[in-house]
Amino acid sequence: MQKRIRVVTPIITEGFSSAEEFQPFAGPETQISQVGITRGPASIESEFDEALAVPDTVAQIMQAERDGVDAVVIDCMGDPGMKPGREAVSIPVIGPAEATYHLAALLGHRFSVVTVLESCIPMMENQAKVYGVADKLASVRAVNIPVLELEDDRERLVNALVEESVQAIEQDGAHVIIFGCTGMIGCAGEVQRGLAARGYGGIPVIDPVPAAIKIAEALVDLGLSHSRRTYMPPRAKRIEGYDLPSREAAVAR
Amino acid sequence: MQKRIRVVTPIITEGFSSAEEFQPFAGPETQISQVGITRGPASIESEFDEALAVPDTVAQIMQAERDGVDAVVIDCMGDPGMKPGREAVSIPVIGPAEATYHLAALLGHRFSVVTVLESCIPMMENQAKVYGVADKLASVRAVNIPVLELEDDRERLVNALVEESVQAIEQDGAHVIIFGCTGMIGCAGEVQRGLAARGYGGIPVIDPVPAAIKIAEALVDLGLSHSRRTYMPPRAKRIEGYDLPSREAAVAR
Amino acid sequence: MQKRIRVVTPIITEGFSSAEEFQPFAGPETQISQVGITRGPASIESEFDEALAVPDTVAQIMQAERDGVDAVVIDCMGDPGMKPGREAVSIPVIGPAEATYHLAALLGHRFSVVTVLESCIPMMENQAKVYGVADKLASVRAVNIPVLELEDDRERLVNALVEESVQAIEQDGAHVIIFGCTGMIGCAGEVQRGLAARGYGGIPVIDPVPAAIKIAEALVDLGLSHSRRTYMPPRAKRIEGYDLPSREAAVAR
Amino acid sequence: MQKRIRVVTPIITEGFSSAEEFQPFAGPETQISQVGITRGPASIESEFDEALAVPDTVAQIMQAERDGVDAVVIDCMGDPGMKPGREAVSIPVIGPAEATYHLAALLGHRFSVVTVLESCIPMMENQAKVYGVADKLASVRAVNIPVLELEDDRERLVNALVEESVQAIEQDGAHVIIFGCTGMIGCAGEVQRGLAARGYGGIPVIDPVPAAIKIAEALVDLGLSHSRRTYMPPRAKRIEGYDLPSREAAVAR
Amino acid sequence: MQKRIRVVTPIITEGFSSAEEFQPFAGPETQISQVGITRGPASIESEFDEALAVPDTVAQIMQAERDGVDAVVIDCMGDPGMKPGREAVSIPVIGPAEATYHLAALLGHRFSVVTVLESCIPMMENQAKVYGVADKLASVRAVNIPVLELEDDRERLVNALVEESVQAIEQDGAHVIIFGCTGMIGCAGEVQRGLAARGYGGIPVIDPVPAAIKIAEALVDLGLSHSRRTYMPPRAKRIEGYDLPSREAAVAR
Amino acid sequence: MQKRIRVVTPIITEGFSSAEEFQPFAGPETQISQVGITRGPASIESEFDEALAVPDTVAQIMQAERDGVDAVVIDCMGDPGMKPGREAVSIPVIGPAEATYHLAALLGHRFSVVTVLESCIPMMENQAKVYGVADKLASVRAVNIPVLELEDDRERLVNALVEESVQAIEQDGAHVIIFGCTGMIGCAGEVQRGLAARGYGGIPVIDPVPAAIKIAEALVDLGLSHSRRTYMPPRAKRIEGYDLPSREAAVAR
Repeated sequence: MQKRIRVVTPIITEGFSSAEEFQPFAGPETQISQVGITRGPASIESEFDEALAVPDTVAQIMQAERDGVDAVVIDCMGDPGMKPGREAVSIPVIGPAEATYHLAALLGHRFSVVTVLESCIPMMENQAKVYGVADKLASVRAVNIPVLELEDDRERLVNALVEESVQAIEQDGAHVIIFGCTGMIGCAGEVQRGLAARGYGGIPVIDPVPAAIKIAEALVDLGLSHSRRTYMPPRAKRIEGYDLPSREAAVAR
Repeated sequence: MQKRIRVVTPIITEGFSSAEEFQPFAGPETQISQVGITRGPASIESEFDEALAVPDTVAQIMQAERDGVDAVVIDCMGDPGMKPGREAVSIPVIGPAEATYHLAALLGHRFSVVTVLESCIPMMENQAKVYGVADKLASVRAVNIPVLELEDDRERLVNALVEESVQAIEQDGAHVIIFGCTGMIGCAGEVQRGLAARGYGGIPVIDPVPAAIKIAEALVDLGLSHSRRTYMPPRAKRIEGYDLPSREAAVAR
Repeated sequence: MQKRIRVVTPIITEGFSSAEEFQPFAGPETQISQVGITRGPASIESEFDEALAVPDTVAQIMQAERDGVDAVVIDCMGDPGMKPGREAVSIPVIGPAEATYHLAALLGHRFSVVTVLESCIPMMENQAKVYGVADKLASVRAVNIPVLELEDDRERLVNALVEESVQAIEQDGAHVIIFGCTGMIGCAGEVQRGLAARGYGGIPVIDPVPAAIKIAEALVDLGLSHSRRTYMPPRAKRIEGYDLPSREAAVAR
Repeated sequence: MQKRIRVVTPIITEGFSSAEEFQPFAGPETQISQVGITRGPASIESEFDEALAVPDTVAQIMQAERDGVDAVVIDCMGDPGMKPGREAVSIPVIGPAEATYHLAALLGHRFSVVTVLESCIPMMENQAKVYGVADKLASVRAVNIPVLELEDDRERLVNALVEESVQAIEQDGAHVIIFGCTGMIGCAGEVQRGLAARGYGGIPVIDPVPAAIKIAEALVDLGLSHSRRTYMPPRAKRIEGYDLPSREAAVAR
Repeated sequence: MQKRIRVVTPIITEGFSSAEEFQPFAGPETQISQVGITRGPASIESEFDEALAVPDTVAQIMQAERDGVDAVVIDCMGDPGMKPGREAVSIPVIGPAEATYHLAALLGHRFSVVTVLESCIPMMENQAKVYGVADKLASVRAVNIPVLELEDDRERLVNALVEESVQAIEQDGAHVIIFGCTGMIGCAGEVQRGLAARGYGGIPVIDPVPAAIKIAEALVDLGLSHSRRTYMPPRAKRIEGYDLPSREAAVAR
Repeated sequence: MQKRIRVVTPIITEGFSSAEEFQPFAGPETQISQVGITRGPASIESEFDEALAVPDTVAQIMQAERDGVDAVVIDCMGDPGMKPGREAVSIPVIGPAEATYHLAALLGHRFSVVTVLESCIPMMENQAKVYGVADKLASVRAVNIPVLELEDDRERLVNALVEESVQAIEQDGAHVIIFGCTGMIGCAGEVQRGLAARGYGGIPVIDPVPAAIKIAEALVDLGLSHSRRTYMPPRAKRIEGYDLPSREAAVAR
């Protein structure tokens, strides 16, 4: 089944992500497109950053549906705009945190998330409560490297990810590791090998956007989308200060 | 202790709330001010509406701190902007849902929230999980009256609140009732009497904004604010599309 | 990425399932094979039946790995043999209950499972606890049709599924429905339409084996399998009364 | 609104607490009175001590209502007599543990309680379960100083509080600290500064009785008291060995 | 192993219970004795009643140890004095609620408690939280017959117990029934038969004191008692108004 | 009441257990018999081993009922065959893990299990979830001695049990210790003394099979067995490859 998936990168920093980067992770029938936002923060490392990223992310999710794509993947582990976006459209909207938390839950007894900064930890622990998998979350840990510096020194990043993952395994009882920032993309193999070298072979390491793309493909193939009883279409009303695409398509479902 | 509390009404509808309406609920040393927002929705009845209300609400929270007020109360049971706002400022920021859920928890065995529309129910149940009181939440129910119609027919509203509260008591085991929309302000006495008339005397009925003002006063008097370990000040970074007050005051704390 | 998925039907009843039935749900690069077992029960409707199905199911999972397939899907919502099978092999082993419970959890606020008989209900509620999604499970309900009679009267089955799903929505707060028996395969579209006709449009209805195949494909494409820290390879020891394939391949990982 | 609050100190030790000590924490419209008990233990450091303190504490709560006070605050973090006291009277009865646990829950992600002795830890962890905030409790720790020695060496007490609070932050993930004994009154500022000196600025430190007084004032101003559906008035019956005030006032509500 | 078990009936009503009544439920090596209290209420139907019953109950538990008995069973489903009593003595102290909640948990998927009055329901739900079995508690229901009227009309009692048990099964999902008052002793067989007659055969009905005696015997035979790390011996201190037996024996353990 | 209890040792290793070993733990009216299985593994240290042990264990449980014994105790902390066995028979079937987890829960605030190998830890943590006592489980730890080597060096075993128990107390907050393998039988006294020597007196140490025998005796004396609403008799159907005793007796109940 041919399908088009739109990755929405919810930051204003250009060049952070691209369709080319994601296409290799997609199946043979999937065409990936990618967009950023123009109103919002340079990166997301707090509830504050996330709050400012959400409105334009939702607008891009709505635009994606108008463009006829089959599913949207949000390119941030805060899952910004996932819930409001789902209300606004009928196509599947995948937040990589929600998708990988559930995927990790079925791969092992408990999982840990290794994210960028300590400021993100309460936010991610709260996600686990809302997503219903708090019992499976061993811990959230941070490498203490800001999002926009993740690509500056790949070796330092990989080493830090391995180190925090080892701590998560030994101190917190983690059996599966999830990267806590989509900017860590492409490091899963190295981290998995690094863990094996530290005596922890056979530990799954989940790279969020590739995993989210696979879940998006699965849902499109299965003809499934989010429940309209959870995500009811918003009532039409006056809105000021935002140029949002029309929701007519969504309302029709 | 003299104190100034700012109520931020996170919708663009003028005349929905006013300082005059709130002042009678404040203590003798408290001066209430009130502002709305200019970018966002006419009312909040979904995650979508809330997402659009947040950025300007956060801006108003930041402006309140710059104006020297001692605490902020958000005038919406979705608690929009509470978490990002707390990161951005050092003064207490009270979300009425968080405040009343905890207040209700200490008044009785289980509480129910009676809100406007069914579309808000999952959102409020998720709040209880994040706020840590899910075990005390009996149910969330809806009167099926939109926010902006709450004032159209006070009798219908009170009757619907009584009816849903009775259902919450009989079907869901509620011992305490919280209004699930700040627009229901002023009905607590009538609903409490209505419940007594239906055989349910001695059931506390909590009116959110008055309760939130009292919690704000208490925190100011106690010299307490939110933990900076939970709500770390956001790192300075490039932001486009929003005119936000400077955070210098907040960073200083 | 070319991949081969083996569906193991853990009952001795021939003709219950076939590769032809499952192939249409697979992606273009996936080849499905299917096997049953020869030692065990005619159908699984109790812990007792499941206990007898497990040893030969595990043997078939081990044989699948030796045959070079890339992943195994178990064709029963009791997930018989999933945990012991994972210990014995390195390739992903997907239990449809575990996979769909997590998939449902990310599609809506709460889900219900509609299964065959009341005798299965405690077993499925316990699964939700072990799989870590008990907070998202609204209820398990039964249509009261035995497994081997599911195909006798498709209309009766669909009607019963719709009826119990409506009860799950109205009484238990379900927002997503999962079929609680893999023998209900192929009814999801009809049930979804039946729900829409009863006023409940936009409710996802999950058909377990198709969903499990998609999760299996996703894991193979992502190069992920279950954690070896959760599912350690069993120590070699004397075993009597079972002809099991050698585990050499599994131990090597 | 003029109001009178009675602090009941549930021990027989005279001079442990006084109205003068509490008055500065009260609002301008509040008049504090204080009483002790004459039957019970010298201090409360176990379930045993608490059991013996309860009957006379309940008698004092009943007497407070007869004296016309508007609310009662119990001067012990075991909340002795809170639940039976609430059954016996209609005015708000505030247990400082219940009040501060909920207040701490809304100030940060997780809180710890630093109490006197290890013997109190299970009791306080059980409180968190009954009060519905177990998910927010990081830990209960002890300074290992008995209640009646708390005032002997203020510096030692403050140092021990700071040390255990640092452990709670670093080992247990606490973001907010609550004093686990009302005898620690007056140390919150010093402990907060001590934490800042150890690198943990912006950590709220809650002094229980002042916080409980503020919650009592808030409830009186809001016209709220505990639910009569949770705390039903006890049926009249024969009681031997206790001289209790008449409950006529309470029954009238 | 010869053993002596003391049943402490924590009310002042004489003739409510007797050793003769309990002896038939004991094993051949067990000798039962029974005592009441002289300071406290005529019956226990609230937190208030329980609070007044506890001090003399603890005194009787301490006296039992001095008398050389091997274990104590408390004759009330509120488990009054269990925790303080355990601190004060080294011999096992069995609360029938705690014992039967755990026994019921291992007999079936979920249990319900059928007690005397609605005023006891929050108290018993809180017990389940503290005892750690809240997930197994389906509900607490009341027959609305006061404790001291239970023996007035046995048929009415049995009918009410059957009726509420049927409701617990059908409405709340109970699979096991526990009597919520020790005064219902001797009705288990009739209620079990009554349930079978209503179509619910094979439902265990647990009579609390007999079950508690059996658990007490088991602990004595196993040489086990409560953990001294949970129930530390209370520190010696001044106590006024109670004549308590010396704790020397307990401290020696 | 005279009673016969059958211990089923679910492994093929002869001489591992015997009736003579268990008889001293039984009461004066109890006669113990013991059987092993002939199809299955030499020991149980994984889900894989357990899966192969279950069918013949269930057969032995059924045979025990046909032999007229009054209750069955399974001689393995994995509780293999407990749930399917209960469906197949009407007499009580006691799994020592389920029985001791609940017994430990009533002896102290939290308990730890000290088992043989790390491979068993997730399995035992999952048991606690299904048995409903996860909140009371402090940790599961392993001595890293395989089952069949437990008897090789008793001193090494006792030392390892003491060492891991001390870790459980100090690191995990355990107040009660349970042996996590029935092959550790007879070490409880030594371990309890070893803990006292390390400064942890008054810590109950539970030996699983003796405790399970006592619970079995208690249930027989009380006339209680598992709920037929949880454990419904399996529907008759074709089964291949197993020689099972007839279930006629069970169906009759």
